[in-house]
Amino acid sequence: MRFVCFLVVSAAVAVPVGAQGRLTVADPVVLVVHGGAGSASPDLPPARRADLLARVEGALRAGHAALSAGGRALDGVQAAIELLEDDSLFNAGRGAVLTYDGAVRHDASIMDGRTGLAGASAGTMHVRHPIALARAVMEHSPHVLLAGAGAEEFAMLRGLELKPNSWFVTAAARGALRGLQGSAAPTAPPGNGTVGAVALDGEGHLAAGTSTGGMTNKRWDRIGDSPIIGAGTYAADATCGVSSTGGGEYFIRLVIAHDVHARVAYLGETCGEAARHVIRETLTGAGGEGAVIVLDTAGRATMVTNTNAMARGTITRSGRVETFLFSDEGP
Amino acid sequence: MRFVCFLVVSAAVAVPVGAQGRLTVADPVVLVVHGGAGSASPDLPPARRADLLARVEGALRAGHAALSAGGRALDGVQAAIELLEDDSLFNAGRGAVLTYDGAVRHDASIMDGRTGLAGASAGTMHVRHPIALARAVMEHSPHVLLAGAGAEEFAMLRGLELKPNSWFVTAAARGALRGLQGSAAPTAPPGNGTVGAVALDGEGHLAAGTSTGGMTNKRWDRIGDSPIIGAGTYAADATCGVSSTGGGEYFIRLVIAHDVHARVAYLGETCGEAARHVIRETLTGAGGEGAVIVLDTAGRATMVTNTNAMARGTITRSGRVETFLFSDEGP
Repeated sequence: MRFVCFLVVSAAVAVPVGAQGRLTVADPVVLVVHGGAGSASPDLPPARRADLLARVEGALRAGHAALSAGGRALDGVQAAIELLEDDSLFNAGRGAVLTYDGAVRHDASIMDGRTGLAGASAGTMHVRHPIALARAVMEHSPHVLLAGAGAEEFAMLRGLELKPNSWFVTAAARGALRGLQGSAAPTAPPGNGTVGAVALDGEGHLAAGTSTGGMTNKRWDRIGDSPIIGAGTYAADATCGVSSTGGGEYFIRLVIAHDVHARVAYLGETCGEAARHVIRETLTGAGGEGAVIVLDTAGRATMVTNTNAMARGTITRSGRVETFLFSDEGP
Repeated sequence: MRFVCFLVVSAAVAVPVGAQGRLTVADPVVLVVHGGAGSASPDLPPARRADLLARVEGALRAGHAALSAGGRALDGVQAAIELLEDDSLFNAGRGAVLTYDGAVRHDASIMDGRTGLAGASAGTMHVRHPIALARAVMEHSPHVLLAGAGAEEFAMLRGLELKPNSWFVTAAARGALRGLQGSAAPTAPPGNGTVGAVALDGEGHLAAGTSTGGMTNKRWDRIGDSPIIGAGTYAADATCGVSSTGGGEYFIRLVIAHDVHARVAYLGETCGEAARHVIRETLTGAGGEGAVIVLDTAGRATMVTNTNAMARGTITRSGRVETFLFSDEGP
């Protein structure tokens, strides 16, 4: 008989300190959340900044609670995003921006890095939690992407909570639409935007999700990048989980989330290196604006935007939260 | 005074003979067309095979005529696809498969490899040429992807030709739906399917496009991969033009068309090597079925499917046509 000994080093424990600087070996990031890339005034009153980041922290803690209770990465993503969908300060769920016709139309997607499965919904008007619908599409339909009235029929069949469209409409969104309708071209939502999350669960699996109302004054049932797997959302355990935010048309054409994955898979970059390249070189070079947040199975998070601000944050396995607003803050 | 001489070798002339085997140096492929990946009986009567491939040849010649008249790659793609959309033998335009509710709903997209711009439409019911709508979205809207009634409103504003939904419905499509509605799960269309084309114009630019009715018995306003940039269609002069066909959910999750591009951009593979890997390894490994056709700026075409058949063909600058049906035929 022989004794064979293994030194077991989990992926999370093996995180190298240094490259990311802010990680401890034993305490990987398990959830990263964004509340949309955009612009913020350097003169933003401290109380408003604190309020905004407190909401991001709430989402981080909601997702963390789901993960700490043994939930899957998908549960962490969904819990964090549902809180932000209900928060009228963000451009998702309640508080989403308005279409040319003055209505709210939601887009959302979710992807499971363990299985490669994904679900998404586009252009819904009455589903309280579009991220829950995206997950239901993944888990209970043979399809990946459902749209409009058909997606809502499916939501009803699944018993998801519905709200009248007016429930989602805020005075701020009405004001933003009025401000734009003198001009012909739609623009990115002012202030806080699309929400997204990437989670790492206790079994070492990743998931990513994104939810949005799109861009103010969007027209003709425009679908943005958020419900497009590979553009708005991507997750693969072998590479990274990715959630995007920004000018959706650029993210669709550049297939931004999958490009992060591909650079890791084919160039051997880290998720952080790939995210920085895709935002600072590829997206910026094409004239687009926006951001990605990424997380790998070692619990290394990167949040990078080429706008001046993105409300964002991370929470570690032990529950340590960090939040940031301006692009030059944090890791 | 000095005389400086240049030996000018255009990309098309510089095509190496050998790797692709079937190319002549002076006569690059300028258009490649598919009529959908699927299954065909080895006992297919010769007359039916000849008829099917004659239709593919017709599309090749229509696209070639547009290119020969000085048209852009986009014009070649559009001309080829419009012919196949009007041909009720293919699952696009007239003759498209039916939804769970017995209607036709079209998806299409187009991308310009020169500019990186793209357009797409999903779930339209009355636009005679969905590929023309996709191009109009690219050229005349600030968006990339429009859906449903909004996409049709945009089509009307652009003066595109409309038809009643019943105009698109064929007896064969009705029969296929009846055959499936005993079962719960939708399946890929029987026989001939999605259509697509990739073109190379006289200025050395690529474009790609795809048009489909999706899968028989699709439900809840399902959107497939064909209108998704990166899944069903991708084009970049620096790498390849790509059009996909097959089980759309796999193509969305695996971001197949962009994956071909990424392997060329990041691994240095040829478009042919990338296409073969993505279909034979990535898609097959995931359990998906389908195909891509690809073309590069040197006029090298590759058409690869993991199904037993795909009606497909190429035409060279001089007008030499080759068409193939079974997967083991041709280059």
